[in-house]
Amino acid sequence: MFSRIVSALAPRHTVHAHCDIPCGVYDPQQARIEAESCYKIIQKYHDSDDALFKARSIHVKEERAELTKHHIDVMWHDYFKPEHLEKFPDLHDVCWKASKQASQVKRTLDIDEAQKLLDLIDKIDEMWRATGGPQSTRMQQLEPVAQ
Amino acid sequence: MFSRIVSALAPRHTVHAHCDIPCGVYDPQQARIEAESCYKIIQKYHDSDDALFKARSIHVKEERAELTKHHIDVMWHDYFKPEHLEKFPDLHDVCWKASKQASQVKRTLDIDEAQKLLDLIDKIDEMWRATGGPQSTRMQQLEPVAQ
Amino acid sequence: MFSRIVSALAPRHTVHAHCDIPCGVYDPQQARIEAESCYKIIQKYHDSDDALFKARSIHVKEERAELTKHHIDVMWHDYFKPEHLEKFPDLHDVCWKASKQASQVKRTLDIDEAQKLLDLIDKIDEMWRATGGPQSTRMQQLEPVAQ
Amino acid sequence: MFSRIVSALAPRHTVHAHCDIPCGVYDPQQARIEAESCYKIIQKYHDSDDALFKARSIHVKEERAELTKHHIDVMWHDYFKPEHLEKFPDLHDVCWKASKQASQVKRTLDIDEAQKLLDLIDKIDEMWRATGGPQSTRMQQLEPVAQ
Amino acid sequence: MFSRIVSALAPRHTVHAHCDIPCGVYDPQQARIEAESCYKIIQKYHDSDDALFKARSIHVKEERAELTKHHIDVMWHDYFKPEHLEKFPDLHDVCWKASKQASQVKRTLDIDEAQKLLDLIDKIDEMWRATGGPQSTRMQQLEPVAQ
Amino acid sequence: MFSRIVSALAPRHTVHAHCDIPCGVYDPQQARIEAESCYKIIQKYHDSDDALFKARSIHVKEERAELTKHHIDVMWHDYFKPEHLEKFPDLHDVCWKASKQASQVKRTLDIDEAQKLLDLIDKIDEMWRATGGPQSTRMQQLEPVAQ
Repeated sequence: MFSRIVSALAPRHTVHAHCDIPCGVYDPQQARIEAESCYKIIQKYHDSDDALFKARSIHVKEERAELTKHHIDVMWHDYFKPEHLEKFPDLHDVCWKASKQASQVKRTLDIDEAQKLLDLIDKIDEMWRATGGPQSTRMQQLEPVAQ
Repeated sequence: MFSRIVSALAPRHTVHAHCDIPCGVYDPQQARIEAESCYKIIQKYHDSDDALFKARSIHVKEERAELTKHHIDVMWHDYFKPEHLEKFPDLHDVCWKASKQASQVKRTLDIDEAQKLLDLIDKIDEMWRATGGPQSTRMQQLEPVAQ
Repeated sequence: MFSRIVSALAPRHTVHAHCDIPCGVYDPQQARIEAESCYKIIQKYHDSDDALFKARSIHVKEERAELTKHHIDVMWHDYFKPEHLEKFPDLHDVCWKASKQASQVKRTLDIDEAQKLLDLIDKIDEMWRATGGPQSTRMQQLEPVAQ
Repeated sequence: MFSRIVSALAPRHTVHAHCDIPCGVYDPQQARIEAESCYKIIQKYHDSDDALFKARSIHVKEERAELTKHHIDVMWHDYFKPEHLEKFPDLHDVCWKASKQASQVKRTLDIDEAQKLLDLIDKIDEMWRATGGPQSTRMQQLEPVAQ
Repeated sequence: MFSRIVSALAPRHTVHAHCDIPCGVYDPQQARIEAESCYKIIQKYHDSDDALFKARSIHVKEERAELTKHHIDVMWHDYFKPEHLEKFPDLHDVCWKASKQASQVKRTLDIDEAQKLLDLIDKIDEMWRATGGPQSTRMQQLEPVAQ
Repeated sequence: MFSRIVSALAPRHTVHAHCDIPCGVYDPQQARIEAESCYKIIQKYHDSDDALFKARSIHVKEERAELTKHHIDVMWHDYFKPEHLEKFPDLHDVCWKASKQASQVKRTLDIDEAQKLLDLIDKIDEMWRATGGPQSTRMQQLEPVAQ
């Protein structure tokens, strides 16, 4: 069904890391997975007419959005370095907006707000890829695919 | 540099989820990213002769391995369902070994033990893919790629 | 009112532990206490007609059920070992059902679901006792008593 | 091997609880289990000559002692009420000493200090039992037994 | 409105600390900031007629009150020592009431209860100041100012 | 040594908050208290010749620096808003450096690095004060005092 070919090449850059050792491992998927969770919770909230489910959705979404924020922060202050800022002058702005959008997703049940959060994380993902992120920070490289 | 084509198809299954809403979002990458962190920390431990760095590595690895375990648990008790067990009779065994291997990675500085943990997570990943995980549990499908 | 006689015998087995040192200390009471909390919250939810109390109950129950799940996981992947699986071939199944039942308790206000969770934890407790748990994993042995 | 007879009597008191709902469930065993973990870690530390094991023991013990402190705090400010203080005028003093002893256990590898912590928790346990704790705050009553 | 005289002398005592190293750093502001958050959430709750906002307020307040409790505990069992108890015989009582009041704030939307919590924290602050806290436990001394 | 003029005016703005309600309460003291803890731990590390104390210091400092980072993040993405960026064009840069400095403090035992972290937090504090932070985000205004 799918073919798994993992690069045998060793990482080529020294990078800083989410655990601050630095271990050198980063991936914006950590933020995206939590943000997708927010999106799906909002979607299910509107599809449901169960009051208990709706009440639970509101606070569980709050937790997932908080985790999203944490993972965005990690990309911002741990992965990205001064040379990346030179390459992407709007780096701070994109990360700031993404963090603030994660806060917004806590406060809303509007699915468009969750989509905006995903779009901002995808911009971070693009900067991570354009700076060699997959090769330098992950042992297993992943790429979005068409089905 | 790369092309991002995200499936427009809606999820085809109702699945249970890591946040227990269930939100329907799962990905073994959450476990793999933390396990790669353990691998890299061990590697850097042996490459270093800085006593402070080595001391820090021991306890930070402990935290990343604990997170790995948590994400393995989520796959085991939240994503996998009885029909998956029918398809993969060794499902429990693989997840059990993966959890125990994450504990083992806390206790060792042997890089082979970290590799065994990655291999076990990859088995969980295969079962997740073979049961339609990428399409039913993620909005953005990712696939390992050759470089 | 009660007599406290704590065994002076040293533990007779080396066991693995909830903190992964392994420290050798385990007790299914950690899961049961949190599960009783879920049970009592549901009971009080139905006895109350205070909207604030009811709203709080829903999300606090979610937290206690998450802790229950964590403590069940610890028994499954840290306390139980291959020789226990030989003795109890349904070990995986009982723990899996208990974890899934803890998720179910998050999603419901049906007290029977909370009772099912307690019953499944008691099965784990029985396997722990039948494999020498109280003597090998606790310094102070406790036993359920009649009043 | 053992007989399990759980009281069918409903709790007779309204009590306050560790989750502040209040759910009405408390048990000093939560503190004792973590404190036994500290004791065993110190014991294993001295029995080992593995530098990695010893390094891990120091920081894992710190975490278990912190959890011990948390559970002592819960007994102090959530379970105990003014009428209990009338009955046990040294209630504050015992809890204060127990908290401070948990801090001490973080700072030492002296097993006698860990035993002092267990003894102080047992004093809290006695006050809990003497104020009807087992019957009013647990669904399953447990009692220390001789082997 | 009130005057508070802060010593200009450099630290004179070795003190114990919130991280149990002890690092020697304490400040009741940690509790007060979280308690002010509770106060403001209750105020905004009553000013709002947005059901989502109100639902979120209930559980977010719960978290902030839990943090308040934690920081009160730290003052009680880590900062205050036997010689402080001699100086302030009601030390235990004030801290106990403050902790219980933080629990009360979880359970209510009455702003007076939040004010009572602030007042109790201010009593702890006064005892901290009267025992040389600002000079011995902080590197930067702060003083409340009149408006 | 330095003078800081704090407005005596009552709150004039609605602001966003660290809990994302938004509750409207922020204070860079939360970051500073944790950073002072790091400073003191390093200082005590060098004053001690107790191997256990030194080992504990390394990982406890890691935790306090992580909390420092979290509180810096909160100021950056929750308190500061676009109009503040207009007033302080180096806002992103100061917060980025402060976050990265907190990571640096995890990795070092050099007290000058801890002092640099304090200095960067003080810059955030100045921007918070210059944008009306004390009046708009705290109920109790505090001011640094000369010694």
